[in-house]
Amino acid sequence: MTFLKNTWYVAAWAEEVNAEAMLARTILNEGVILFRDAAGKAVAMRDRCPHRAAPLHMGSVKDGVVQCGYHGLQFDGKGACVFNPHGDGNIPANAKVKSYPVAERHDAVWIWMGEAGRADEALIPALDMARSASATVVRGYLNAPSHYELMTDNLLDLGHTAYLHPDSLGSEAIVHSTRQTRRDGDKVVYELWAPDGDAPPIAQMLVPALCAGRVDHWMVSTWHAPCLIHQVTGFAPAGANREGAEVMNGFHVLTPETDTTTHYFHALSRGFRLDDPQLDAIIDGGVTMAFANQDFPMVGAIQRQLSGPDVGDARPVVLSTDAGGVMARRVLQQKLAQEAETAPVSAPAQVQSVQFVARRD
Amino acid sequence: MTFLKNTWYVAAWAEEVNAEAMLARTILNEGVILFRDAAGKAVAMRDRCPHRAAPLHMGSVKDGVVQCGYHGLQFDGKGACVFNPHGDGNIPANAKVKSYPVAERHDAVWIWMGEAGRADEALIPALDMARSASATVVRGYLNAPSHYELMTDNLLDLGHTAYLHPDSLGSEAIVHSTRQTRRDGDKVVYELWAPDGDAPPIAQMLVPALCAGRVDHWMVSTWHAPCLIHQVTGFAPAGANREGAEVMNGFHVLTPETDTTTHYFHALSRGFRLDDPQLDAIIDGGVTMAFANQDFPMVGAIQRQLSGPDVGDARPVVLSTDAGGVMARRVLQQKLAQEAETAPVSAPAQVQSVQFVARRD
Amino acid sequence: MTFLKNTWYVAAWAEEVNAEAMLARTILNEGVILFRDAAGKAVAMRDRCPHRAAPLHMGSVKDGVVQCGYHGLQFDGKGACVFNPHGDGNIPANAKVKSYPVAERHDAVWIWMGEAGRADEALIPALDMARSASATVVRGYLNAPSHYELMTDNLLDLGHTAYLHPDSLGSEAIVHSTRQTRRDGDKVVYELWAPDGDAPPIAQMLVPALCAGRVDHWMVSTWHAPCLIHQVTGFAPAGANREGAEVMNGFHVLTPETDTTTHYFHALSRGFRLDDPQLDAIIDGGVTMAFANQDFPMVGAIQRQLSGPDVGDARPVVLSTDAGGVMARRVLQQKLAQEAETAPVSAPAQVQSVQFVARRD
Repeated sequence: MTFLKNTWYVAAWAEEVNAEAMLARTILNEGVILFRDAAGKAVAMRDRCPHRAAPLHMGSVKDGVVQCGYHGLQFDGKGACVFNPHGDGNIPANAKVKSYPVAERHDAVWIWMGEAGRADEALIPALDMARSASATVVRGYLNAPSHYELMTDNLLDLGHTAYLHPDSLGSEAIVHSTRQTRRDGDKVVYELWAPDGDAPPIAQMLVPALCAGRVDHWMVSTWHAPCLIHQVTGFAPAGANREGAEVMNGFHVLTPETDTTTHYFHALSRGFRLDDPQLDAIIDGGVTMAFANQDFPMVGAIQRQLSGPDVGDARPVVLSTDAGGVMARRVLQQKLAQEAETAPVSAPAQVQSVQFVARRD
Repeated sequence: MTFLKNTWYVAAWAEEVNAEAMLARTILNEGVILFRDAAGKAVAMRDRCPHRAAPLHMGSVKDGVVQCGYHGLQFDGKGACVFNPHGDGNIPANAKVKSYPVAERHDAVWIWMGEAGRADEALIPALDMARSASATVVRGYLNAPSHYELMTDNLLDLGHTAYLHPDSLGSEAIVHSTRQTRRDGDKVVYELWAPDGDAPPIAQMLVPALCAGRVDHWMVSTWHAPCLIHQVTGFAPAGANREGAEVMNGFHVLTPETDTTTHYFHALSRGFRLDDPQLDAIIDGGVTMAFANQDFPMVGAIQRQLSGPDVGDARPVVLSTDAGGVMARRVLQQKLAQEAETAPVSAPAQVQSVQFVARRD
Repeated sequence: MTFLKNTWYVAAWAEEVNAEAMLARTILNEGVILFRDAAGKAVAMRDRCPHRAAPLHMGSVKDGVVQCGYHGLQFDGKGACVFNPHGDGNIPANAKVKSYPVAERHDAVWIWMGEAGRADEALIPALDMARSASATVVRGYLNAPSHYELMTDNLLDLGHTAYLHPDSLGSEAIVHSTRQTRRDGDKVVYELWAPDGDAPPIAQMLVPALCAGRVDHWMVSTWHAPCLIHQVTGFAPAGANREGAEVMNGFHVLTPETDTTTHYFHALSRGFRLDDPQLDAIIDGGVTMAFANQDFPMVGAIQRQLSGPDVGDARPVVLSTDAGGVMARRVLQQKLAQEAETAPVSAPAQVQSVQFVARRD
């Protein structure tokens, strides 16, 4: 399976990356370690010693220098070997660990898995994920048991919430909602308008006063290729033309871990009830309930159905509610085709076995 | 691996299939759901929504209508989509779930996995598995960890009972028994005659008075292709020419689940001690002991040996005790060859990946 | 993956093999049973009945005769069928179990997996692994989660002890030690000299009086192809020219189990504190700590890195500390090439599926 390489992926939330310990995370099938160098800058490199392929995360990090746990080779934040305790101490020319461009923005650590020369920080989407004086953000990490595109389909199709999440996100009003999907350059925008109904259960907990009566409920999801969805959710008294609305900004950031699993970074930013830990806990619990306990088993089961012997009919039914996912897949196909065209000519990619009987430096 | 398709398989015992919940069971590598429609008739269909391949058993069933748990599409007992809650509510032409012919007979629900037009209920073997005023039946379900033919070999070879089941079914008399195997049309009949010996342990518990002295013990197993064995077991006082015999009818019904696992439906029907729950428990415990704890580990280990790197000698030794299994395999080969010849010309069967970027209905 | 076949491997410690029960062990991907015949001689044969491939270890052994647990066929210590309880009792010509040459030496049971005619006991290395009046031996068995060559590399590179085992085998003196590696015929000899330092933690427990002051510490490891390392470890007061030294003999015997796992037989023989069970326990605990808890996770992780999608750079860095492993791999390559040249012409090796519909003897 092919992933887009020349793009920024979220590798971690800022607070997951620190100077005292390495964070090991597989991204696009590559083992990566993340930590902070002596200046506090987040860095990323392959989780693999160039000597004997030991995972570097089994060693230690100190003052921005990683020491391999097997033989004590030391590497700086750029992956250069800075100490060899064996023999005459010479450092072999190929004693280098691959490092990756990293940028820290919106409280997230972004990684560029493709050609380093093309890693332009201006390509990181302008978002409002960070905490601020006027915004409280509840965020977290979950591991989703499917290819990330099955999760994109899920997130760009809010019609499913009425059926899979009736106890949190769904409502009868969503069943009868109006939905529109459009492409906006490389973005896909999905709008749902569910007027004059009972608010979904989660809203009753978030904005109870507002939900005492009937509400207008809307959601606008904007997909940024390859795998970030910004979702604005609003509630207002029914018929008030969005007067007195409460609005939240949700962020669903998917980073491919392997062909069959996905890192799922979620954040919900609100401008009301800023200092309310109980509300934070309700939001966090709702995410676990809806995503980990309902979406994940469903998309995991679908993935198993699609990859098993029982693949069945190759002509899936496509409904209006799928429009967002279909558009996003098309944009992605175009970007993948473009990347394939512009890829530098390289040596044959994959080597099946590594012989340790090799030249000796 | 190829399974015979145009034949009836037992999918469930009657009491396993009901109107309030779906029973999900994989049969011949296909995921199937079973439930009862509004009229109480058992129905079966693919466990797979034609929209996004969600397992339908993750949804709900009510009044004979299945609702997909992901997007709320509804299907009747024939697999026709009867409700689409999205967009204009039109039902796409290909929104159909494959359904299977089902028949309820002998307290079992039978399924036909092949061409529906050939599903003739008259082909269901005439058996006496059902409970009645004159017969108490102890029955159950186990999952066997092997291809079903390894279980057929086991069940048509009663010589193994003396070695693998000395504490229940086996006896010294079985070691010295006379055995005959013959083909009777498409059936295979195996007869064992163990005269003038001590009864096996299980018989001592079932018919203790009779087993106080030496007994004549016989078993007649009749195999019905592809995978049902009817086994008559009798005990009589030694030399009495079967006068005063107690006879039981055992049914061993195998339904392929996958290439490496088998549904095992077992039933033992008796005409004596009809209302004796303690005896029922003894029988049920004996089945667990002999089948689940002794046969299954053995056939599971054999399957692993045959599929592992250590496959070894391709010329297995065949003994007289294998005659039943060998004959049954020959009949099955003929039936499979016949089925391959008469199969309708169809489009290339299997598709490896399903693209959700498809036409939109 | 190819293993050297015409060589002796340790299959078990002598005390693991007895007359009352079979020891089942996979060696070079072949399932093997080991037991003692009526004369007390250790014997080995395939763990697989020639009738239906049942693992023989699921049966029983008595007076040197193995009885299959499925159908009661009996085999003597040479693998010849000596009893068939079925039909007329004739023994089919192909009712033979493959047996292996076995030799018992140095308290170990050695097996020859190649051509039986070439199994010369004189090829077993002359070692001092056995218990005696002047030597106490602590020995045991562990299962290592890697191909055996990754363990050979580990054992022939004592430079890693300072980093992976600082709490037992490693020391600052080892970091600064002198190491020399040389080939001696088919053997590889590795010498480490760590003078005038603090003794490693394990030595403090083994020879505390000696370790009160600074010590000279040396290790000489001799690799015998394909997979046995004899390691002499010595400690003496610093600068005493090895006067007053305490010396131990360690044996690390690797036998390939599968392509990805290894039997690891370890023994440490000492000539001091002979009757000291507490010391025995310290040694045994140290082995568990250093090997099972530190080496195994590391080599297991390396093996996963090398076989996963993330294989990365095919030009591993080789350091001076790897010289022993590199030399041993070269000797092994030569021996494998030699074996391939002299292998007898044989029928096509592997059969994928065994049909039980076969001729009947």
